[in-house]
Amino acid sequence: MTINRIPISVREALGRVIDNVGRLPHEKVPYTESYGRILAADLTATDDVPLFTKSAMDGFAIRSEDSTGASGERRIAFKVVEEIPAGASSDYVLAPNEAFRIMTGAEVPKSADAVVMFEQAKETADGFTVRKAFRPDENIALQGEECKTGDVIVPEGTFVNPGTVATLATFGYSSVEVYRRPVVGIMSTGSELLDVDAPPERGKIRNSNGPMIQSQLKRMNIDGRLYKLEADDLDTLTARVREMLSEVDAVITTGGVSVGDYDHLPGLYKNLGAIELFNKVGMRPGSVTTVSVLGDKPLFGLSGNPSACYSGFELFVRPALLKMMGHDKIYAPVVEGILDEDFRKANPFTRFIRAELEYRDGRIMARPSGFNKSNAVTSIAKSNGVIVLPGGTRGFEKGNAVRVMMTDMTTGTDRFDI
Amino acid sequence: MTINRIPISVREALGRVIDNVGRLPHEKVPYTESYGRILAADLTATDDVPLFTKSAMDGFAIRSEDSTGASGERRIAFKVVEEIPAGASSDYVLAPNEAFRIMTGAEVPKSADAVVMFEQAKETADGFTVRKAFRPDENIALQGEECKTGDVIVPEGTFVNPGTVATLATFGYSSVEVYRRPVVGIMSTGSELLDVDAPPERGKIRNSNGPMIQSQLKRMNIDGRLYKLEADDLDTLTARVREMLSEVDAVITTGGVSVGDYDHLPGLYKNLGAIELFNKVGMRPGSVTTVSVLGDKPLFGLSGNPSACYSGFELFVRPALLKMMGHDKIYAPVVEGILDEDFRKANPFTRFIRAELEYRDGRIMARPSGFNKSNAVTSIAKSNGVIVLPGGTRGFEKGNAVRVMMTDMTTGTDRFDI
Repeated sequence: MTINRIPISVREALGRVIDNVGRLPHEKVPYTESYGRILAADLTATDDVPLFTKSAMDGFAIRSEDSTGASGERRIAFKVVEEIPAGASSDYVLAPNEAFRIMTGAEVPKSADAVVMFEQAKETADGFTVRKAFRPDENIALQGEECKTGDVIVPEGTFVNPGTVATLATFGYSSVEVYRRPVVGIMSTGSELLDVDAPPERGKIRNSNGPMIQSQLKRMNIDGRLYKLEADDLDTLTARVREMLSEVDAVITTGGVSVGDYDHLPGLYKNLGAIELFNKVGMRPGSVTTVSVLGDKPLFGLSGNPSACYSGFELFVRPALLKMMGHDKIYAPVVEGILDEDFRKANPFTRFIRAELEYRDGRIMARPSGFNKSNAVTSIAKSNGVIVLPGGTRGFEKGNAVRVMMTDMTTGTDRFDI
Repeated sequence: MTINRIPISVREALGRVIDNVGRLPHEKVPYTESYGRILAADLTATDDVPLFTKSAMDGFAIRSEDSTGASGERRIAFKVVEEIPAGASSDYVLAPNEAFRIMTGAEVPKSADAVVMFEQAKETADGFTVRKAFRPDENIALQGEECKTGDVIVPEGTFVNPGTVATLATFGYSSVEVYRRPVVGIMSTGSELLDVDAPPERGKIRNSNGPMIQSQLKRMNIDGRLYKLEADDLDTLTARVREMLSEVDAVITTGGVSVGDYDHLPGLYKNLGAIELFNKVGMRPGSVTTVSVLGDKPLFGLSGNPSACYSGFELFVRPALLKMMGHDKIYAPVVEGILDEDFRKANPFTRFIRAELEYRDGRIMARPSGFNKSNAVTSIAKSNGVIVLPGGTRGFEKGNAVRVMMTDMTTGTDRFDI
């Protein structure tokens, strides 16, 4: 069965996928487990930061006016009346030329308005002298100068990074509302596939796509469920995927998507009543990538070729799942790199080439990672990025500026720059 | 107690840390759990890849010599004698002008040496015709063309990425030898610290550094153990850290490292018999970062200021832990970005400024993430990178090229480019 397939652009294909998935419900998690999740509500300040006016240095808290006119020739003396360690405070009211000995982070008492650093003071029997005048608020962090109660600190839709976790702690949020993570089912189809612990067999290969996708999901903090391999039989496949759909939010199949005689995905989608968003993309490898939706659940039909499978995941599955889990920055950053090797073969389609990126003097050097057919598993193992070559009639040379997709990042961007 | 501290450069400080930590022992894990670990032995090919000579396309396998002389005017006819789905093979020996119908990935029988794609054939009643001559091996993937049995595919010391997992599966490695992950203990010191669920208290702040560091470790796939907060008392602190050291491979303390009256780290290191590698670094923030070693265990004394604590971790702790877990690319990639905001204040020391990176048309735009004192928790929440400004007498302007540390990456580089 040869199907007439009309290729659409990568941008158009990705747009259709993103338009057809929605955010999942949210749930509450302890803040210590929130790293890598997405905020489902604005994170607002529950207090001023700093909560109180405090010393930014170790030193002496004084009334700044008392230091007026101080100089190297005319040092002004202060008497230390009390000591304030971090965590403490004092209600004592300074008289003229009195001072507190104060530690970084300690509350500056109301009667003081500047801090003399130890390095700026010369100690005396009962205190110290200074040789310069201090400005009001010098070496002091004022209450609320960083943010005020009610300020939105981190907006909804933001990836929870280590700083967000620190912010949650600062404001006393012991739990936080985040979007639910999608449950994703993975099924590798194809009767040529063996399990990892099976001995080699003539005409067969071990299933590497399932575990690879599971790792790509793990990189996103998503647990992927591997479903049992099935023979290339349409009825069994339909029954199994129907079962999967009752358990997961998204289905990824690999293989069975090309135009061979034993490829059943078009029939599967028809049986399920799924709407096909596209079945051919103007790109290499992975032109036969197919995406369908059944209700709000996407079904990703990735190529059985490992490299095509890999880049199909990074291009379409990852942004879609990030949108489902509430992220507002769903695309891999695309930056300019320098091609570090000739790549002379031209191709009319946009190419996504597994690359080894090297960082040299601030520049990103990118070279195709070894053997470059779309079935090369080993080239993915060496890859930490993807070179994007626009389609056209010319090849590319060492030294050319090229676009590079950064695939090894925990965070992304809101623009698809390809 | 004021200690005379001599600042050393960031590069020198980092060098001392890296020279003083070693690799941990290794252990075997199931390959499905190996993502994010580091290979403790070369991954070698257990078979040729491809394992057998196979069709790279859906089509017909022929003897290439039979197609010699074919053209649009003189089409050559073939008769299909057998069908070979993926996963199958055939011992049938082709006679002249006979062909197999064959699917992508199926073994090409010995008697055939080229594959005609469906698109290149015109079907007939009992076969097809072609209009061009086929080269030997055309549309065929030869046994061993990607790699041969015994080839080193991924060297020891490499981060296990999704492609590595696929490679393990391909070669039938159901388990793999990886370096043990370090067990890391975190203790935030300082009597001004409250737990996250404690109500606000005059002169105190909630402990945000502990959970933040735990998240920075989680980003590296390391579980950090939070130890109970202790008062700023040297004997208790020594006893607690001694206890920690019996349970962990590395200790991170925050706070207690400046020259205030209540800072006990120098005394702690003395009590423990630890060797101080440095106690002052020519950088802002975090100049008082201290690192010691006791035997093969590093003790990181990070600043109590959240931003200094954050960048101290990324600069010193992360590379050291990556070395301990066997990684050969332990440094954060440093790339050139464009400063997207004026930053006019000069500083004699190298500055590490939390930054919001934006990717625009292939370029990395970097702006300081909000409020920029070293105690600003909220600026870390907005940060996805660190701007590195060299020390000197001048400020920086919007549009200047600056170095940017990529902190949100799952993989790194082997060069420290600062």
